[in-house]
Amino acid sequence: MPVSPDAPIEITAFKWVPGFAQGLVRDLRIRWALEEIGRPYRVRLHDVLQPRPPEYFLEQPFGQVPTYKDDEVELFESGAILIHLGLQDERLLPGDRAGQMRGIAWLIAALNSVEPAILPMILLNITSKGEAWTDEARPKFLERITSRLKCVSDALGDKQWLEDRFTIADIMMVTVLRQLRGTGILDGFPNVAALVKRGEERPAFQRALADQLAVFEANQPQPEGATA
Amino acid sequence: MPVSPDAPIEITAFKWVPGFAQGLVRDLRIRWALEEIGRPYRVRLHDVLQPRPPEYFLEQPFGQVPTYKDDEVELFESGAILIHLGLQDERLLPGDRAGQMRGIAWLIAALNSVEPAILPMILLNITSKGEAWTDEARPKFLERITSRLKCVSDALGDKQWLEDRFTIADIMMVTVLRQLRGTGILDGFPNVAALVKRGEERPAFQRALADQLAVFEANQPQPEGATA
Repeated sequence: MPVSPDAPIEITAFKWVPGFAQGLVRDLRIRWALEEIGRPYRVRLHDVLQPRPPEYFLEQPFGQVPTYKDDEVELFESGAILIHLGLQDERLLPGDRAGQMRGIAWLIAALNSVEPAILPMILLNITSKGEAWTDEARPKFLERITSRLKCVSDALGDKQWLEDRFTIADIMMVTVLRQLRGTGILDGFPNVAALVKRGEERPAFQRALADQLAVFEANQPQPEGATA
Repeated sequence: MPVSPDAPIEITAFKWVPGFAQGLVRDLRIRWALEEIGRPYRVRLHDVLQPRPPEYFLEQPFGQVPTYKDDEVELFESGAILIHLGLQDERLLPGDRAGQMRGIAWLIAALNSVEPAILPMILLNITSKGEAWTDEARPKFLERITSRLKCVSDALGDKQWLEDRFTIADIMMVTVLRQLRGTGILDGFPNVAALVKRGEERPAFQRALADQLAVFEANQPQPEGATA
């Protein structure tokens, strides 16, 4: 199993997050990639304190997780970490430059052409839930999400993965789209929903998810309020 | 001058966009990088039609510009194109993997930790300008922008560039932050405003901007409504 206290690769993760974020925190992306290639890693856990302590920002400019370090690099941004791993292992990204760059293009599309359309919906549904303005704003943000999902759906067509094989782009797109869970929005795009399901069914994803959730389970702040 | 009709590198750009987008369209990022390294490129122009014709989506899944092709790759997403160029030229990204990956981390931070906070403000100020909900929503979106800008400001400190030298990360961060022009928001972060100014003062940036604007000037749909 890749989680190993003496591993040369270290990532950071949170000890616990609220239920709506469990299974979505971005260290999942790195855990998944490392599981795909069987590379062991150790996890350094942060408390989710508000405000976050200054030392969090010294290693991650936005006070987030994950960070990543190995013998060669010290990194933040899950997208950059996936690129670093992908360039080292052909199970995550093709060996030729053209194929590598296509995977990187789709990874960045997930981060910059798809996720920014999704994030305001999370504000509407969670952070600002119930506020008056959200009723009027919702159709506008929803339209933006669906127009971007239509583009992903059209480009994906009947392919199994975004390009002609599994890459870090699929890890990124699947984990970005999982943020729509519970909204029903993906129901309108069956081939995109199938892509997410295909990703979630990979054994490496399932091990990564179990390892993230096990940490939260072990660090429940209020056991009586927790869901199983 | 890098713009050259017979160049092996081809990018796409729009013939004309409204004033609020002029100087901000993302082909600027690629033009700037190519100017930095003196590599010639040719430009294939698209009309900005609504709805966009299906063939736009075949080469760029989201119907946007720029796309990029050379003898080796066919790409979309300005971030991926900058990474492709950066990995080939030490004027854009260090030659060692650790330095390359730090530049890529900051490039992705611009695209995924900063720009998503800025985009809703553009919706408020342009697309949905004057709608009732925007008054209540504005402080929330503004708080998100300023909290992210504070992180960039703290990480930048008194450095000239995001890392210890100019890289594609600075091209990305500067062009992302230029979308705040006219809002006054950067006034609260003098070192970040100075980073933007430092980028804009580079001769390569100025040539790239002039070349983008010259295309719009030459393709004004209604000369009488245009600003100089």
